[in-house]
Amino acid sequence: MSVIPKPSVPAPNIIRCASMELVVTDLAKSREFYVDVLGLVVTEEDENAIYLRSLEEFIHHNLILRKGPVAAVAAFSYRVASPEDVDLAEAYYKELGCRVERKKDGFVKGVGDSVRVEDPLGFPFEFFYEVDHVERLVWNYERHSAGALVRLDHFNQVTPDVPRGRKYFVDLGFRVTEDIKDDAGVTYAAWVARKATVHDTALTGGDGPRMHHVAFSTHEKHNILYICDKLGALRISDRIERGPGRHGVSNAFYLYLRDPDGHRVEIYTQDYYTGDPDNPTVTWDVHDNQRRDWWGNPVVPSWYTDASRVLDLDGNLKEIVKREEPSELEATIGADGFSYTRKGDKEQGFKLGNTL
Amino acid sequence: MSVIPKPSVPAPNIIRCASMELVVTDLAKSREFYVDVLGLVVTEEDENAIYLRSLEEFIHHNLILRKGPVAAVAAFSYRVASPEDVDLAEAYYKELGCRVERKKDGFVKGVGDSVRVEDPLGFPFEFFYEVDHVERLVWNYERHSAGALVRLDHFNQVTPDVPRGRKYFVDLGFRVTEDIKDDAGVTYAAWVARKATVHDTALTGGDGPRMHHVAFSTHEKHNILYICDKLGALRISDRIERGPGRHGVSNAFYLYLRDPDGHRVEIYTQDYYTGDPDNPTVTWDVHDNQRRDWWGNPVVPSWYTDASRVLDLDGNLKEIVKREEPSELEATIGADGFSYTRKGDKEQGFKLGNTL
Amino acid sequence: MSVIPKPSVPAPNIIRCASMELVVTDLAKSREFYVDVLGLVVTEEDENAIYLRSLEEFIHHNLILRKGPVAAVAAFSYRVASPEDVDLAEAYYKELGCRVERKKDGFVKGVGDSVRVEDPLGFPFEFFYEVDHVERLVWNYERHSAGALVRLDHFNQVTPDVPRGRKYFVDLGFRVTEDIKDDAGVTYAAWVARKATVHDTALTGGDGPRMHHVAFSTHEKHNILYICDKLGALRISDRIERGPGRHGVSNAFYLYLRDPDGHRVEIYTQDYYTGDPDNPTVTWDVHDNQRRDWWGNPVVPSWYTDASRVLDLDGNLKEIVKREEPSELEATIGADGFSYTRKGDKEQGFKLGNTL
Amino acid sequence: MSVIPKPSVPAPNIIRCASMELVVTDLAKSREFYVDVLGLVVTEEDENAIYLRSLEEFIHHNLILRKGPVAAVAAFSYRVASPEDVDLAEAYYKELGCRVERKKDGFVKGVGDSVRVEDPLGFPFEFFYEVDHVERLVWNYERHSAGALVRLDHFNQVTPDVPRGRKYFVDLGFRVTEDIKDDAGVTYAAWVARKATVHDTALTGGDGPRMHHVAFSTHEKHNILYICDKLGALRISDRIERGPGRHGVSNAFYLYLRDPDGHRVEIYTQDYYTGDPDNPTVTWDVHDNQRRDWWGNPVVPSWYTDASRVLDLDGNLKEIVKREEPSELEATIGADGFSYTRKGDKEQGFKLGNTL
Repeated sequence: MSVIPKPSVPAPNIIRCASMELVVTDLAKSREFYVDVLGLVVTEEDENAIYLRSLEEFIHHNLILRKGPVAAVAAFSYRVASPEDVDLAEAYYKELGCRVERKKDGFVKGVGDSVRVEDPLGFPFEFFYEVDHVERLVWNYERHSAGALVRLDHFNQVTPDVPRGRKYFVDLGFRVTEDIKDDAGVTYAAWVARKATVHDTALTGGDGPRMHHVAFSTHEKHNILYICDKLGALRISDRIERGPGRHGVSNAFYLYLRDPDGHRVEIYTQDYYTGDPDNPTVTWDVHDNQRRDWWGNPVVPSWYTDASRVLDLDGNLKEIVKREEPSELEATIGADGFSYTRKGDKEQGFKLGNTL
Repeated sequence: MSVIPKPSVPAPNIIRCASMELVVTDLAKSREFYVDVLGLVVTEEDENAIYLRSLEEFIHHNLILRKGPVAAVAAFSYRVASPEDVDLAEAYYKELGCRVERKKDGFVKGVGDSVRVEDPLGFPFEFFYEVDHVERLVWNYERHSAGALVRLDHFNQVTPDVPRGRKYFVDLGFRVTEDIKDDAGVTYAAWVARKATVHDTALTGGDGPRMHHVAFSTHEKHNILYICDKLGALRISDRIERGPGRHGVSNAFYLYLRDPDGHRVEIYTQDYYTGDPDNPTVTWDVHDNQRRDWWGNPVVPSWYTDASRVLDLDGNLKEIVKREEPSELEATIGADGFSYTRKGDKEQGFKLGNTL
Repeated sequence: MSVIPKPSVPAPNIIRCASMELVVTDLAKSREFYVDVLGLVVTEEDENAIYLRSLEEFIHHNLILRKGPVAAVAAFSYRVASPEDVDLAEAYYKELGCRVERKKDGFVKGVGDSVRVEDPLGFPFEFFYEVDHVERLVWNYERHSAGALVRLDHFNQVTPDVPRGRKYFVDLGFRVTEDIKDDAGVTYAAWVARKATVHDTALTGGDGPRMHHVAFSTHEKHNILYICDKLGALRISDRIERGPGRHGVSNAFYLYLRDPDGHRVEIYTQDYYTGDPDNPTVTWDVHDNQRRDWWGNPVVPSWYTDASRVLDLDGNLKEIVKREEPSELEATIGADGFSYTRKGDKEQGFKLGNTL
Repeated sequence: MSVIPKPSVPAPNIIRCASMELVVTDLAKSREFYVDVLGLVVTEEDENAIYLRSLEEFIHHNLILRKGPVAAVAAFSYRVASPEDVDLAEAYYKELGCRVERKKDGFVKGVGDSVRVEDPLGFPFEFFYEVDHVERLVWNYERHSAGALVRLDHFNQVTPDVPRGRKYFVDLGFRVTEDIKDDAGVTYAAWVARKATVHDTALTGGDGPRMHHVAFSTHEKHNILYICDKLGALRISDRIERGPGRHGVSNAFYLYLRDPDGHRVEIYTQDYYTGDPDNPTVTWDVHDNQRRDWWGNPVVPSWYTDASRVLDLDGNLKEIVKREEPSELEATIGADGFSYTRKGDKEQGFKLGNTL
């Protein structure tokens, strides 16, 4: 695929990933999952959409559940530093030749002047500054469950050509914090950040554009363990796809769930500070069995293969482009793949991954 | 197999599981694992044996590593309530027709008058009261690592006929706290206790006599997560066989490791109080996918199949008797087995266990 | 005071402290505190009484709130090992010359054949074996708050003559696990246990009989911190009397609250195993500033001076007998008292206790 | 005091608080405290100075201990975004009329081209971009103790006129995240941030310039509790000045220690994200008893009164200017002060603060 050029217009000053708009097929079921089980806070709702936020958020929402015929992602939404940055976003993507729409009153409730684009990787991105402030529930511990989700942490996108996407995000002002490569120079994934955490979004190599997951943070690891305990108590432990575990990449403690439509949600805590301009990029070998799980526990194949479709600005499913480079799943698991605990090791252990 | 009769002699008053004597093939390697990695405290050691204890222990040892040609278990050792109970143990097993040995000066350092038997299930058991008191490091936080092991919690034994073993332990005065069964009446495992926790030992159905694991406790769940993090840092994450996770049975948080000889060690925390005489026995359906892991994460096959050999009182390997009843592994995983998240469910999820 | 003789009748086999009956002056206010704030589970209730239990309990109740004109304690209730032990309790206290009442149908709901006594120290004690089993909520994590109280752990009683009370409890079969003394031989407090924790009850030297506190356990320390956070959020942080902190005695993590009537409730976690018959007794110097708080934080004077009155079997307040020996408060704080961080230290630090 | 004007030169783009240079009187004693007890990592050291960093740091140091005759602070050091920002810092402070020094090779090891100034509030500030990268120990869990300090979080400075200091920091590009005021308009303290946490530094009203504390972060609350447990085990619990507790301001979990020279060190974890430009400022009433400790526990007077002296660029102690506005200590504690749990409350509780 062609290289995405860097526009002559300055990039908008992006502050952070701020919200995702998810299309769900059964609003009541999704509400039960995100509100009753996970405890996200309802800012407002009607028969078509529910606006949710995490407990430490002061803007209107971090997640919109919108009723629709096909489960998909309608927008990855970023907050920018000023109203002028919305203008810059519009100009930036126009110069890139992308489809761009702007609404002075916003595309969704709670948000003002916004730009939505179909970005060069095929994803629906939104940029906004104006937003309603709502009650920040930092100190409202009486409303915090044992598994309290306190922040939206990041997105994760599936795209066929990771270096192409990486260049596009670097041009947009993101820092690359970590990546996964092999000795032949193939990049399997990359993590890019605007705020001072490991990522605001990540690029996972695969058929795309698709949404791999959206991640919320807890304060501590026991909060994540409690979510698992509660899912067991509710007899919906089969919503747990992978984890809990410790990531190699990002060093965060993690859990992956699947919502009633199969959208993947990560619960995440405790990565590290990356805010310095010369923050070192950490590169992992794709064959290092601790890269995805520091404890060497296996990655379930569905985690590599499944992801959510995304919509264009008309609400139609974006077509999928196949990845041409090797897949991480095949490179690391199964008959032709391999992973090591210690570089150079030949012997196989008894671990579950080896039996797949 | 024949029913084990209840002796006419009163059973000895057993206080708790107290120590295991492990035969290891490379004492230095085992020391590195148990002392340097896991942080057990050395009470004393010489070129043939290392006596280890947990941080809250006040008796001489909870684990003996003894150098030998073949990895195996030489003794499962229980503390009894008084010197007279050692006499009772001797009489009890003699009436059972077991081989019994008694040493007034003990079989190992730190312990006085003791009885060792080859019990009716084929296991080498020891009973003692007299023991050297040593410094209890409860308050010595300067010696507690982030993964501090504070107590020996329990043993777990593999035996072909679980109901036969269960009756034998009930006669010995153990309470049955939990078990795993199927609708046809097969018992796959049972947990039995003298102290007020879920078990001092458990019976796992399989070819036996073999030792399934020995378990140490931490104070909190994060201590267990740290042990995993440290194993990753030391690039020995392949010592993690299963977990960490939440058990259904016992409700404890767990982790299974394999030592350099393949002996299995569990790290365990937070089961519940079982000390009342009418403590209700909890029975789990073998097809309940949350029984072994409350979060529904799969059990690695080696966890079902591998176990350590045990020695007779002459130090020779005990012969293995095959289990004739169905195996839990086959009943629950693979082409012929099945597990459910919700009783009555037909559909299979995306979870790793389903792909094995 | 006269020594309490040991009866010729065997002592009843006490299993554990099981329940306290508290008289409260405003049932609705107390319900709000114990149920809405602390999350104890209502087993049953009517306009006069509320029966509460902790989340891992399988017997009918651990705490009864009964409406009455004066805040007090109506019963410290212990479970015994068999119906015959209720007979033994009756005979034991009759031989001691105590007032004894027996009700085949129990004094309270959920409990059968019971004995209540005014014991030699002036406390209303109850002994029972028969009890209704109720749902044990061990695995019902959907009902566990971030501050879940999982067990009743212990009582604490104020009595003028600690050695006198200690002898009485040792005769009853309790083990002394820890105590606080001075060089002159004065005992300020003692901890005694039947179950394998540091105590089922403790004796605190002071004007008595009075109830110092009743304690519930959490699984982990963060559960206790959350209770504090929630009390802050509800703007009732003034219910926190002392802590959270780490005890020297018992090594447990603790928090002391005061209920709407001023009854003191401790939240407690992670003491150590004491179930061996020769478990070493730990003696603390009353001047050791880490004995009550391992971090040396000061004990608020009210913690030493305030306690709840207790009732006789007719429901009248028991008269108070003054302590004649030195008080721990005066021995350790203020103009005439002193405490050290390191034995032998002369210098005073900047710590709050020094400014009282 | 006169208002500090805003220079016409753009402010340097400050990334974060990066390091403090402390003068200590006994280097060996300080090393024992910061390295052996607190576990900071030695980057390099000689007979005059020790360069320390936290476990997740990738720049050369976060704390310098330099041997000197009088305990004091030699520099509060900030990292800027580029080499050009060092030029801007020089110009900015020159325009302010401050004493400014620049060294192309840095004032300390590990750091290149730097500017040091005596700022308008009298503090020695340093600005640098060039710095040696060192090994980041994020994943080196084998080196993490149970109380691992992972980041430098913030400074705290004592200054007589908080609004004057606040304006100066706002001009420098800091966001004000929280403050403490009274109804009469007096400001007692303010928190200001460049990175997306609650502060890079705070201004505490009092006689100044003095350094109130320097703060390091842990991952979780139990890490801080462990530090207390360890200090107890080492019999240096009298290094704990205040806490552990939950702050109202910042919502962080905290602990204050005093080093061998009396320099105050905070251990801190889990404040909230503040990186949006319109992040709401939280204002606390000085009489709100939960502002400094969310649980209402009292603030020890020394915490208000004691602080470290600072040095000018010649290494001489800066003169102290007295605060003329009311002191927070007097406004809230003691005969003339008052604090409430619930706004409008008249009654006093039993809490320790009331007895001071």
